[in-house]
Amino acid sequence: MPHTPAYAAQSADKPLGPHTIERRAPGAHDVAIDIKFCGVCHSDLHTARDEWGGTKYPCVPGHEIVGTVTAVGEDVKGFKVGDTVGVGCMVDSCGHCDPCKAGEENYCENGFTGTYDGVLPDGSHTFGGYSTNIVVDQRFVLRIPHKDKLAAVAPLLCAGITTYSPLRHWKTGPGKKVGITGLGGLGHMGVKLAHAMGAHVVLFTTSPGKVADGKRLGADEVVISKDPVQMAKHAASFDFILDTVSAPHDLNVYLKLLSLNGTLCLVGAPPVSTPHPSPAVFNLSTNRRQLAGSNIGGIRETQEMLDFCAAHGIVCDIETIAMRDVNKAYERMLKNDVKYRFVIDMQSLKDEAKAA
Amino acid sequence: MPHTPAYAAQSADKPLGPHTIERRAPGAHDVAIDIKFCGVCHSDLHTARDEWGGTKYPCVPGHEIVGTVTAVGEDVKGFKVGDTVGVGCMVDSCGHCDPCKAGEENYCENGFTGTYDGVLPDGSHTFGGYSTNIVVDQRFVLRIPHKDKLAAVAPLLCAGITTYSPLRHWKTGPGKKVGITGLGGLGHMGVKLAHAMGAHVVLFTTSPGKVADGKRLGADEVVISKDPVQMAKHAASFDFILDTVSAPHDLNVYLKLLSLNGTLCLVGAPPVSTPHPSPAVFNLSTNRRQLAGSNIGGIRETQEMLDFCAAHGIVCDIETIAMRDVNKAYERMLKNDVKYRFVIDMQSLKDEAKAA
Repeated sequence: MPHTPAYAAQSADKPLGPHTIERRAPGAHDVAIDIKFCGVCHSDLHTARDEWGGTKYPCVPGHEIVGTVTAVGEDVKGFKVGDTVGVGCMVDSCGHCDPCKAGEENYCENGFTGTYDGVLPDGSHTFGGYSTNIVVDQRFVLRIPHKDKLAAVAPLLCAGITTYSPLRHWKTGPGKKVGITGLGGLGHMGVKLAHAMGAHVVLFTTSPGKVADGKRLGADEVVISKDPVQMAKHAASFDFILDTVSAPHDLNVYLKLLSLNGTLCLVGAPPVSTPHPSPAVFNLSTNRRQLAGSNIGGIRETQEMLDFCAAHGIVCDIETIAMRDVNKAYERMLKNDVKYRFVIDMQSLKDEAKAA
Repeated sequence: MPHTPAYAAQSADKPLGPHTIERRAPGAHDVAIDIKFCGVCHSDLHTARDEWGGTKYPCVPGHEIVGTVTAVGEDVKGFKVGDTVGVGCMVDSCGHCDPCKAGEENYCENGFTGTYDGVLPDGSHTFGGYSTNIVVDQRFVLRIPHKDKLAAVAPLLCAGITTYSPLRHWKTGPGKKVGITGLGGLGHMGVKLAHAMGAHVVLFTTSPGKVADGKRLGADEVVISKDPVQMAKHAASFDFILDTVSAPHDLNVYLKLLSLNGTLCLVGAPPVSTPHPSPAVFNLSTNRRQLAGSNIGGIRETQEMLDFCAAHGIVCDIETIAMRDVNKAYERMLKNDVKYRFVIDMQSLKDEAKAA
């Protein structure tokens, strides 16, 4: 599918604008997808602006993709034209290392290929979901079991799996006390998912204005993290805390809340130039605590998450925007002025391309 | 036992010198011990000089104690006069919290009482093993199954259990690749123990002069950690790395060596004023790695460690010193000029007290 309309950043200091990319013709194992919606992830902004280093331009972000199958290769099994499908953060991996064989392609020893700003085995550069269509190997295409609210399903492909995978890995469930820091795109999904898994969920936020919303989303308690008195009441009591805040902050205040063998898992990452302050070793050795990181989730687990969300009626809280408004959305995202994820209605890009 | 000869620091900036302390008369649950040897731990120096903050003076360090039972209280079971016993880092804990009930008194929710610079329930301040005798509740006294080399057994009570406990917790054994950073008091025990547990052991050292000794102690490989080429060969290949270095250093170089779900566990702690540089979040989220801390071990596990060491013929490599030379030993310890632990022969203090 040559001449695919898209939005791209041409350099780190330029806003995104209209751009045309080439998509490969679907091969035997490929699924071609007409993109309906694409979520706007903080990683899109970090990458477009080269804040993590190494971005190749032009850069077409977007890895929270849902749409409709328009064509399938001859060896494709499990997908047919007309199916509602999704694509998340990955479009390829080596397939033969131990993590890949275990279905944890996100930890591929040879490095998975990102949906955007990645490099495929043939050397081609990947372009993401800020575009009207995409062609993806069937191994990286997900079934979307939700019957409606398709726009609100899109961010599950990154924000959903990024929080679901560590919550599952660290055994969130009944009888566990689980914290979620930050009520943004990731955090609000963390609250919904941990609640649906049956844990006692405590949301940490700096914003008193988010208390009511935190409870509405499923938090049993909401703690203002800047209030030392409130924080001290929870000392050494958490099994697991999922930290979704990417701005640099003091990890010690959360480490101190972990009970024996507790884990603080980071799923946000600050810019390389401004890391978190170094956590104190005493806050790790006390209670044999662990500071961990987690990076999205494997394809099998992503499907499990989509099925879990459909079964529990879970979607993201979103604000739908037109493609042309993505730069404004980035600025609002930086001010946390979104509840809780922007999703691009790709019809807007199709209309814009038709008018041009 | 009033008027017990000891060595104490009277303030953070003074060397240790002769001092007399009072030991309580043994109560119904107490074991009185004539101290034969006491190891010199880096924590002794940190505490004597108030480098971790909060030291109370006078401070009598020493928590690697072996000696002979001289009296037991009427309710003491399992120890009798003449037994060879040990005391490690703890002399009390609450006894009723979950960790205490699970035998992990080192993680007592109400805080264990350190063998020195601690406070007992009656409000008295604890004094450690740089003294001729000690009185300890039977719950915190260990049996010493080693038949000889008693001086070399003493450091097992801290250096031994501090490395044994995390090696066991993170399942060191056959088929596992385990790293030990630093060949000092803790590190040389880590190498011996991990080797005895059956792991493939890699020692990381900055000193080419320690390669031969590392192999003698049980390392399968010794890597010069300052050599990026040698380090790169081990990228993403370790199940577990035990970091025994207390000087501030870049943790990223070791995090990068961990494979999927691998753990870097810190058992050394730099002074509060000079923490480790902050590790990069990407080095945690890649491979879902964990940065952990561990703090000595419980009494049951300490006994298990002593029995394991006796069964495997493991003791520490030591240099025996007289009590009066402890300040010189501290200076040499700061230059890593000891292979690998100083142990005070407490006969020297008894002789000194008699002569005075």
